[in-house]
Amino acid sequence: MIELNFDKAGGLVPAITQDYTTGEILMLAYMNQEAFDATLASGKATYYSRSRQTLWIKGETSGNVQRVKEIRVDCDNDTVLIKVDQLGGAACHTGHRSCFYKKIETGSIRVIGEPWFDPAEVYNK
Amino acid sequence: MIELNFDKAGGLVPAITQDYTTGEILMLAYMNQEAFDATLASGKATYYSRSRQTLWIKGETSGNVQRVKEIRVDCDNDTVLIKVDQLGGAACHTGHRSCFYKKIETGSIRVIGEPWFDPAEVYNK
Repeated sequence: MIELNFDKAGGLVPAITQDYTTGEILMLAYMNQEAFDATLASGKATYYSRSRQTLWIKGETSGNVQRVKEIRVDCDNDTVLIKVDQLGGAACHTGHRSCFYKKIETGSIRVIGEPWFDPAEVYNK
Repeated sequence: MIELNFDKAGGLVPAITQDYTTGEILMLAYMNQEAFDATLASGKATYYSRSRQTLWIKGETSGNVQRVKEIRVDCDNDTVLIKVDQLGGAACHTGHRSCFYKKIETGSIRVIGEPWFDPAEVYNK
């Protein structure tokens, strides 16, 4: 039985999502127990949306589903690391491959790379 | 000026720490504004300890300092990714290189790898 510690963050654990081949960090989101169980059962990364307060199967709108290849748990069971196959090439709702497309350079922020898709075409259909 | 959004998690943002050469995820911790500023100013990863409620310069006890090589910010400015050179070879207080040394396998948890150091020798001196 897998017992995560959801108590430290109000019923949630942060979930780091990493490309299972390149090691690139794609995004960070949150899971509650239900989202974690759904991820294990379905093999598709499923998060809890704090803004919408509901389960969120990643890619259900955009088609950019994340197939789970491996799940790691940290030392004190309050964070998970999800290694995935990112379908559609991009994880971020902005169209970028990774949500971490902004790099800090001597106090300013520079955008790294170009979006893979146009969010206006993928969402708001 | 770098404006992170600390409002979503009570004055904190999660900080993912990644080995800058291998891409391995070493740990996840939290930063408040002061910890983030200290990280930028010192070049050493500095977190906010939720349990001790104080700034925490990683490695100040163990010697396993993290030299910051690059900082990324995510799309909505509420998570940071810190790419580091991990001194001493191990980030986790258990002695493992990474805090994510437990792998979920068909519903159970398996420990991956051996500790690099013995915590009893490094801490509690």
